[in-house]
Amino acid sequence: MSLSSGKAIGLFDSGLGGLTVLRELHRTLPSQSYAYLGDNARFPYGTKSAETIIRYSRECAGFLMKREVGLIVVACNTASANALSTLEAELSVPVIGTVGPAVHEALETTRSGKIGVLGTNATVASKVYDEALKEQDAALTVISQACPLFVPLVEAGMLDGEIVDKVVELYLAPLKEQGVDTVILGCTHYPLLIKPIARFLGDGVTVVECSKAIARDVGKILGPVATTPAKPLSTEYFVTDEVGQFNQLAAIFLGDRAVQAVRIESLY
Amino acid sequence: MSLSSGKAIGLFDSGLGGLTVLRELHRTLPSQSYAYLGDNARFPYGTKSAETIIRYSRECAGFLMKREVGLIVVACNTASANALSTLEAELSVPVIGTVGPAVHEALETTRSGKIGVLGTNATVASKVYDEALKEQDAALTVISQACPLFVPLVEAGMLDGEIVDKVVELYLAPLKEQGVDTVILGCTHYPLLIKPIARFLGDGVTVVECSKAIARDVGKILGPVATTPAKPLSTEYFVTDEVGQFNQLAAIFLGDRAVQAVRIESLY
Repeated sequence: MSLSSGKAIGLFDSGLGGLTVLRELHRTLPSQSYAYLGDNARFPYGTKSAETIIRYSRECAGFLMKREVGLIVVACNTASANALSTLEAELSVPVIGTVGPAVHEALETTRSGKIGVLGTNATVASKVYDEALKEQDAALTVISQACPLFVPLVEAGMLDGEIVDKVVELYLAPLKEQGVDTVILGCTHYPLLIKPIARFLGDGVTVVECSKAIARDVGKILGPVATTPAKPLSTEYFVTDEVGQFNQLAAIFLGDRAVQAVRIESLY
Repeated sequence: MSLSSGKAIGLFDSGLGGLTVLRELHRTLPSQSYAYLGDNARFPYGTKSAETIIRYSRECAGFLMKREVGLIVVACNTASANALSTLEAELSVPVIGTVGPAVHEALETTRSGKIGVLGTNATVASKVYDEALKEQDAALTVISQACPLFVPLVEAGMLDGEIVDKVVELYLAPLKEQGVDTVILGCTHYPLLIKPIARFLGDGVTVVECSKAIARDVGKILGPVATTPAKPLSTEYFVTDEVGQFNQLAAIFLGDRAVQAVRIESLY
């Protein structure tokens, strides 16, 4: 399958986190156009109920569909875990979430069969990762850990240091003790903490980032496409709240790519 | 002034924080009825822009006005700092915010004229505390500190311990070094961290909680009223997202008072 000519790939997230996915798509599929929506007026999704997350996700996807995207990437684990099946059933374009690609990669990686999953409260409560992993292999041991302070740390720009190390230890010590050899970063914010996370887990543990797994799956859907830009790459950024802070932090998430987001009034 | 017979006092907050204000009102004005709205579907407000905070605050106040409250307490520093003047201009009932009462108390307390203000990003960015304090006394030194990790710590139930102490030190060390003798807790979540905050600041520093100052100001508006219940106290709780977690955490904020919140579909 390939996208209809000229159609962009749409991504949405509750705010900035999904930019780690966009960054990987930019890197691996540079000849595509993208439309990114960050619903920062209602950020974060990870502390909200499933019902509210589904409502917000529907509204985000609806905005992207009006822009006639050819494929939607739910670049937010919380939204993927809670709303993916709803969106798949309701939308007329392919929908890719974070869970399937990450699960696939974790299954290829693990040797011990002990897999850790880090996520927001809402992602862990959904049990989506546990179920998806065990559906593939009922003998797996899955240890899920909600890490509610990770997103606030990233948003506060605290990506390393003593406090980060203490919080990493608090959340990851139980996984380390149980001998996981693979840990899924089940939140698109968490790749920004990969250094302290990987340092604490040590060399024997593989850390799976959703972004890379998603980019690979999107590539498969697109089929053979140019991996060098055939035309200048176009990416549009939309947010529901302030542009200034988004543009500033987006540069960190995207690795110093300049961003000029457009503020949209409301999704409802 | 007193409220028309039977009219409740309305309070709103982005979620749970305002319950620290309600708790103080319950204690000091037990003969009143209350309606509390926590907009937890859009929590937190402290990371959002002024424009979005004003829009959300209008919608919250609108909900309470439809319930015919006789007075509105903006039980959220972020909303008070950004939306109070808008609400005062638009509403037909008295509106009490957090800033005025806290500033008044801080002015009574300080001897050195050096006052610290702790708040969310949005509250500190608004500069409302600085301006209100200096309007009263231009010679004051005001040191404002955004504490973006305090609300996530409280919401994660981390009210004490090593990580909390490290974060408290991070934010408060500059205030301590500059010799403040009064610190305003400019966020209704922060009273739950008062122990580690007061411990770090030491005996010579007075910590001002908005809740007590607000309760005193509401008492002044009401005039002489019964301070023991004339009838069974009625408090209604409304939330825009999940009820379960709210009820559970509300007990902590209110000091073990059982809460049965009602979920409302949407404020818009």
